[in-house]
Amino acid sequence: MLHFSRTVEIEWGDCDASGLMHTERYFALFDGNLWRMLEQILERPMRHVLDTFGASGFPTVDLRGNFPVRSTLGDILEIETTITALRRSSFDVSHRARKGDELHAEGFDTRVWVRRSGEDPTRIEAHPLPTPLVDSFREGRTIRQ
Amino acid sequence: MLHFSRTVEIEWGDCDASGLMHTERYFALFDGNLWRMLEQILERPMRHVLDTFGASGFPTVDLRGNFPVRSTLGDILEIETTITALRRSSFDVSHRARKGDELHAEGFDTRVWVRRSGEDPTRIEAHPLPTPLVDSFREGRTIRQ
Amino acid sequence: MLHFSRTVEIEWGDCDASGLMHTERYFALFDGNLWRMLEQILERPMRHVLDTFGASGFPTVDLRGNFPVRSTLGDILEIETTITALRRSSFDVSHRARKGDELHAEGFDTRVWVRRSGEDPTRIEAHPLPTPLVDSFREGRTIRQ
Amino acid sequence: MLHFSRTVEIEWGDCDASGLMHTERYFALFDGNLWRMLEQILERPMRHVLDTFGASGFPTVDLRGNFPVRSTLGDILEIETTITALRRSSFDVSHRARKGDELHAEGFDTRVWVRRSGEDPTRIEAHPLPTPLVDSFREGRTIRQ
Repeated sequence: MLHFSRTVEIEWGDCDASGLMHTERYFALFDGNLWRMLEQILERPMRHVLDTFGASGFPTVDLRGNFPVRSTLGDILEIETTITALRRSSFDVSHRARKGDELHAEGFDTRVWVRRSGEDPTRIEAHPLPTPLVDSFREGRTIRQ
Repeated sequence: MLHFSRTVEIEWGDCDASGLMHTERYFALFDGNLWRMLEQILERPMRHVLDTFGASGFPTVDLRGNFPVRSTLGDILEIETTITALRRSSFDVSHRARKGDELHAEGFDTRVWVRRSGEDPTRIEAHPLPTPLVDSFREGRTIRQ
Repeated sequence: MLHFSRTVEIEWGDCDASGLMHTERYFALFDGNLWRMLEQILERPMRHVLDTFGASGFPTVDLRGNFPVRSTLGDILEIETTITALRRSSFDVSHRARKGDELHAEGFDTRVWVRRSGEDPTRIEAHPLPTPLVDSFREGRTIRQ
Repeated sequence: MLHFSRTVEIEWGDCDASGLMHTERYFALFDGNLWRMLEQILERPMRHVLDTFGASGFPTVDLRGNFPVRSTLGDILEIETTITALRRSSFDVSHRARKGDELHAEGFDTRVWVRRSGEDPTRIEAHPLPTPLVDSFREGRTIRQ
């Protein structure tokens, strides 16, 4: 299924007081990959990714990660994201952060495609994945940014 | 084993563009609980938690989470943390974020107690958990902040 | 005019790789104060502060700060915020972060009260400050949280 | 004097609940520029920027900013940084964030070059700017990343 990768440099603001990268930052980088992936396959600016389909987001409902080697300031990481499963209104996505051949972090998350509730707009509810999105996710394509 | 809880209010800066709390923020709140727990049981300021034992941190090597209800601006959450397993140089810790009786998030992480390597100070290496820490973690005590 | 203060403890996640507090974090703490101030004077949950008046935010358009002493992990800071000027659709607010008698940071920002544009909802436009807000800002009251 | 620029895309995680970019994020982007500038002129990885000169950081002691247009999700911004003044142990730097010809943010900060105190390593103290750094800052060069 669809695969996306980009290169990032670990910044001062990504690191904690011991000079190692914050655990949370890996998830922010992984999330950034998913957004860029959607931007690319829908061929429209990031800000129109959601409103094209009347969605309000694709929050994480389940998440796992492991961090064999902690990244540090200035590390050049390859951040890779792959769609791994598709369901009616949710999908699974896996991520890796590598420094060359050295695996620094892996993540696995389940995302739900949501809309604001018609009855109570302060609530969100799951909504079927748009067909064009499903079709693109199913492609064997690799996007390199 | 040791249990800790505190109350937090979800702020504007904790929320994303759909008005829901960032997934990463739950982990930052959980981490804040663990630090406060150490501060309380060691009875010394947070900044001396590490240097008391010559440690440089206790990074996460493995992590899981699930997020059944997403928190929003102004939610008053009870953040609870419990030590669940102790090993030679690592420990497991579980966390919950509740709004009243409604479970918003659960987290489970494995932390490793690390020191800077004597041979290469840019590297960290696992180190046995200090005995006073193990003893306190084993207590059935509940700390409420 | 209206004055608000609260006490915060500097966390691991607030500090950078040199162990000192991130400059940006002072502004996040100052912003948190302003939100809590609004919550208190309007006597409604934070999430209804904006929709009560049909506002979409109160972004900073101008900002100054100075940081004579950098805070570190575990510092207990008193964060103080005072309304200093009121105009038709904007206001000035000043902030201080103190550790006991030691001044760590001062901030001064100008905020504009904004609504989504009726013509183009992706744009925001300045809107007159709601009268109840102006009245509360003018009070000589001190709120201590 | 030395000038540096790079292009960034505003991400979901950079935006607040009104869909606009967080004020603090501009400063994080500006700070990232300064680090990249140092990395380039010293021709060594970011992690060795400080230890090459025995420094522990270059914290902001004074800062101003103005934000005429607030950036939103997916905006492609040009982030520009210029050294504007050099003193014995501090320097001034100015920054701009532009979306095409539209100015979104300006920042001006004063940085101090610091080392850990020999007497009390938990304290930092100002230290003269290293000569190679001063020489590079004085160049009329533009670095485009």
